[in-house]
Amino acid sequence: MRLALQEAAAACARGEVPVGAVVTDAAGNILAAAGNEVEARHDPSAHAELLALRAAAALRGDKVLPDATLWVTLEPCPMCAHAASLFRVRRLVFGAYDPKGGGVEHGARVFGQPTCHHAPEVVGGVRETEAAALLRGFFAERR
Amino acid sequence: MRLALQEAAAACARGEVPVGAVVTDAAGNILAAAGNEVEARHDPSAHAELLALRAAAALRGDKVLPDATLWVTLEPCPMCAHAASLFRVRRLVFGAYDPKGGGVEHGARVFGQPTCHHAPEVVGGVRETEAAALLRGFFAERR
Repeated sequence: MRLALQEAAAACARGEVPVGAVVTDAAGNILAAAGNEVEARHDPSAHAELLALRAAAALRGDKVLPDATLWVTLEPCPMCAHAASLFRVRRLVFGAYDPKGGGVEHGARVFGQPTCHHAPEVVGGVRETEAAALLRGFFAERR
Repeated sequence: MRLALQEAAAACARGEVPVGAVVTDAAGNILAAAGNEVEARHDPSAHAELLALRAAAALRGDKVLPDATLWVTLEPCPMCAHAASLFRVRRLVFGAYDPKGGGVEHGARVFGQPTCHHAPEVVGGVRETEAAALLRGFFAERR
């Protein structure tokens, strides 16, 4: 999560919403790390999670990551939550809860649907304060 | 939808789940078209909808498509439904309903959540029979 927070801070410095994501394997080795690139790519789907998942799968040359943990500083949106399901990640660890945009513990609750074919183990609130502080600082500065 | 069905058939011929997507502007001009590339890219997030939305936004050099219609042969999954929301598409037209994997009329019902910030107008069941026949044929052949 330390690296995910660094990715979030780096995204912030680039003018992106500060969210960072890291994918690790079963042994804890880092497969991929990314920050939001929505502004840089003019692509609202360029969330940190999707970029990191795609990079990890590309590194592996496989389309599933059944031993992987996705670490992300903010509760994933429904798009990224369902992507984590499609990539078959074993575990999702996130920092700040996102009542307004989250799709794991809020809103669409993607993994809780009977039609969800693969639900990772979920751990929320890990280094929540730091992750939330980054986001609060970013949005306070924009106002 | 004719072109989306052609994209689905082309995906089928490549060994991909036959789903095709097209993005048009307000005047009906085609901005982007894509078929599934999950197998080719080893990327379970390479759904036709995400590829077409991303290509349309890249063509425009903008990150939102507020005048656009997304045409897709199958009800989008929660990932693609939320992506359509993030790209701010005006309208979503889909072919076959997907009770097992859909996230629009089934499961997560992404646009129906109070936390969904932008819900496109939705029209389902357009050329449903042809879209479903392509999918049925594909899966029958695999069994």
